[in-house]
Amino acid sequence: MLKIGPYEVESRLLLGTGKFENLDLQAAAVEASGTEILTFALRRVNLERPEPDALAHVDRSKHRLLPNTAGAKTAEEAVRLARLARASKLSDMVKVEVIGDDETLLPDPVGTLEATRQLVDEGFIVLPYTSDDPVLAQRLEEAGAHAVMPGASPIGSGQGILNPLHLKLIICRAKVPVIVDAGIGSPADAAAAMELGADGVLLNTAVSGAKDPVGMARAMNWAVKAGHLAYQSGRVPKKETASASSPTAGLLD
Amino acid sequence: MLKIGPYEVESRLLLGTGKFENLDLQAAAVEASGTEILTFALRRVNLERPEPDALAHVDRSKHRLLPNTAGAKTAEEAVRLARLARASKLSDMVKVEVIGDDETLLPDPVGTLEATRQLVDEGFIVLPYTSDDPVLAQRLEEAGAHAVMPGASPIGSGQGILNPLHLKLIICRAKVPVIVDAGIGSPADAAAAMELGADGVLLNTAVSGAKDPVGMARAMNWAVKAGHLAYQSGRVPKKETASASSPTAGLLD
Amino acid sequence: MLKIGPYEVESRLLLGTGKFENLDLQAAAVEASGTEILTFALRRVNLERPEPDALAHVDRSKHRLLPNTAGAKTAEEAVRLARLARASKLSDMVKVEVIGDDETLLPDPVGTLEATRQLVDEGFIVLPYTSDDPVLAQRLEEAGAHAVMPGASPIGSGQGILNPLHLKLIICRAKVPVIVDAGIGSPADAAAAMELGADGVLLNTAVSGAKDPVGMARAMNWAVKAGHLAYQSGRVPKKETASASSPTAGLLD
Amino acid sequence: MLKIGPYEVESRLLLGTGKFENLDLQAAAVEASGTEILTFALRRVNLERPEPDALAHVDRSKHRLLPNTAGAKTAEEAVRLARLARASKLSDMVKVEVIGDDETLLPDPVGTLEATRQLVDEGFIVLPYTSDDPVLAQRLEEAGAHAVMPGASPIGSGQGILNPLHLKLIICRAKVPVIVDAGIGSPADAAAAMELGADGVLLNTAVSGAKDPVGMARAMNWAVKAGHLAYQSGRVPKKETASASSPTAGLLD
Repeated sequence: MLKIGPYEVESRLLLGTGKFENLDLQAAAVEASGTEILTFALRRVNLERPEPDALAHVDRSKHRLLPNTAGAKTAEEAVRLARLARASKLSDMVKVEVIGDDETLLPDPVGTLEATRQLVDEGFIVLPYTSDDPVLAQRLEEAGAHAVMPGASPIGSGQGILNPLHLKLIICRAKVPVIVDAGIGSPADAAAAMELGADGVLLNTAVSGAKDPVGMARAMNWAVKAGHLAYQSGRVPKKETASASSPTAGLLD
Repeated sequence: MLKIGPYEVESRLLLGTGKFENLDLQAAAVEASGTEILTFALRRVNLERPEPDALAHVDRSKHRLLPNTAGAKTAEEAVRLARLARASKLSDMVKVEVIGDDETLLPDPVGTLEATRQLVDEGFIVLPYTSDDPVLAQRLEEAGAHAVMPGASPIGSGQGILNPLHLKLIICRAKVPVIVDAGIGSPADAAAAMELGADGVLLNTAVSGAKDPVGMARAMNWAVKAGHLAYQSGRVPKKETASASSPTAGLLD
Repeated sequence: MLKIGPYEVESRLLLGTGKFENLDLQAAAVEASGTEILTFALRRVNLERPEPDALAHVDRSKHRLLPNTAGAKTAEEAVRLARLARASKLSDMVKVEVIGDDETLLPDPVGTLEATRQLVDEGFIVLPYTSDDPVLAQRLEEAGAHAVMPGASPIGSGQGILNPLHLKLIICRAKVPVIVDAGIGSPADAAAAMELGADGVLLNTAVSGAKDPVGMARAMNWAVKAGHLAYQSGRVPKKETASASSPTAGLLD
Repeated sequence: MLKIGPYEVESRLLLGTGKFENLDLQAAAVEASGTEILTFALRRVNLERPEPDALAHVDRSKHRLLPNTAGAKTAEEAVRLARLARASKLSDMVKVEVIGDDETLLPDPVGTLEATRQLVDEGFIVLPYTSDDPVLAQRLEEAGAHAVMPGASPIGSGQGILNPLHLKLIICRAKVPVIVDAGIGSPADAAAAMELGADGVLLNTAVSGAKDPVGMARAMNWAVKAGHLAYQSGRVPKKETASASSPTAGLLD
């Protein structure tokens, strides 16, 4: 079980709902992914009129919502969005995004830390999206974050894990769940994150941008389970020299 | 379906039977892996006395046998082992291993090509284990190999895919199945091989050498399926710059 | 010329003076490296008694001193060390190190930013050692840093550049010099940093910890020049397919 | 000194003469590179009329010629070209290229081995261009090759070293010089090859295709020296955890 604050889920795959071609495709991919936590941008949601919108097809009995503050450029904006989300009864859980660079969408370390502190104070369940800086991740945990979400590579880049050492350091030091967010491009990347010991991965573009998003969602579902089980099963060490798979003592000679 | 010569199987994971702690563990890992093709060293098998041995626990109704010529250092030795296997009714399918370096167990290119030619001539279904040299793989196919099995890294090293470009070139040019053999250390490696377009992977040490071989076998089962489905589903391209998962046009501002 | 605040130097290699076996070896390596800027830990220097010490063999007419605040764990400590250095007439230039993790010696992002702001306000020439977080590097520049010094990998690890994309992003956005600091293990690493467009590299362990520190210092001297000249000379693009070096139109056929 | 058969040179950089914009640029780059061995395609040379041609500007008193058999697709063609070169008094040293793949220009392992055997028998000084297959390199040495020239990546691709382990294995096992040929894109790549213990590198496109070929030639000159000296000087080991450059015992606290 993945336990974030008071909430528990079976699936370690978190899915973003953005950029699917249509809502039917979105719903089918959500189903295939096996996810139980869906993230979406508060900026996309009309919080005043609960009408057909980006979340219309989501069966809320089966999925927990994780609104995110995408688009916020300051701690204040992020905090304001989170408050609106809670006031609208959407969720008291929030993924903090405070963007510090328009081209790469990399997060602002100081703004992220400030927003996390403030929202923890206000009683939110807070999951900050952060760079892979191991010390910053530690500071976010000290500030009360309920999970930390380091990026593998820039959002939507599909470049996979750029710095496995930093992710590993974050995972080794963290007492809260570490959910690798952003940059995962394929099942191999997702499995690699889980094999490092991550508690979960959050995907969006890798699924919604695939030629067949439903097939890719299913593949990611398997890959996250595979990576997690492999982490638990204790992989073989890497060795420079070979060791024969077939014991050398034989009968034919 | 994976089609090798006249044989078809569903599972794209081939498993080696060597180096399991005991035969019960071997049998449980075989089951968890979902494999339908098992490889084993002919040198380990007493071809004259069909007594309890390394294959005793294998349900031959569910698994096709792929004897290998591990230990052979010349084409002649490999050919001799293959003939004995066929004479003993074990199999007319053979994985050719002609080792050219004792420390790394890397294959001998010339010996491998000679043994392949000879065994094809004699009517065997031939799967040569080869380095990741793209031209050599092409020559093996021209010699009549029914599949080619390039190594990801040295046998038992668990180093994963050292040269993805070479594997990709082999896969792009091959008309016969390409089965990545040797060096796979974890599900992420296995998925990565399949995402390059490989038709299958052969594992041994990564499973038998894991702390929990049965858990790892199950993880590999999922990973191979995940990588293959991802290949079919068309992954997103890698991009240097980010692209927002959450469409920018929003309602909250 | 590398221009840091009001100071200009020819050599783009900055050298740390720590951990040499003896001061003669240190002096010979300093000479072979061609460096003009030497860094040293203020904690190692007895600021009250200007007696034979770690800097005794340094010809201060040829080398500018860059004291660093190694060992500081808070902005306050770093600021205090810098003030002492200036009071002792050692230098008004300071490399800010505020360590956030005892095992990896990775910097604390918030403390580094605070110390940078404070020391800029007090008129120092400030060069903060920072993680490779591109947004943090931008914030440090906005705070008035005269150069930014992102790490390639943890101090003394010799792992080289873990995340070339992050370094490249920092370099592309910075208007002040970017000096890659920490983790460089070999001339190939140093050249790679310069080829990304870095303005300089700071070395210590890679030189002092080599079997022959003087030989390695000379090798690094060449490598930094090579990488910088290559950056200016415009390298060939990387291509997936080959292109013949030898034009195909020939006379022999 | 680099010793190939009976010949000795100081410089460990071998340069190809193809694809320079004009012969003046070629001559200036040759000079800046410090090379003493120049390679050129026999197919480009009119062996019957010793008129102004691709080698016209080469001062043969300062440079040894290494004709190559670029364009040959069989051992026979390569042997024929080598014989013509010797008959024309160009050189008794030959770089064997037998191309096995038109798109990547990767070498044919069997053809390369055959041509090497034949030319050794005929008394040539033979340097075969080969893939990075460690066993094949061993076979070439056994066949009498005076040096082996494994590719870093496909010719002209500028991708650098795709498989450092294979190069390292080749270098560890070889008793003849190992000259890394093809795919080097930048000084960092060249230094990396030398740091693995290579005896030399052969460059062409990386220099002739740079925006400023003369600057790049000079950078490569430094990088090859840097990598070789670093190899001799004993680099620091790579470590997962950091170790402080500045000794922790200090005076200030």
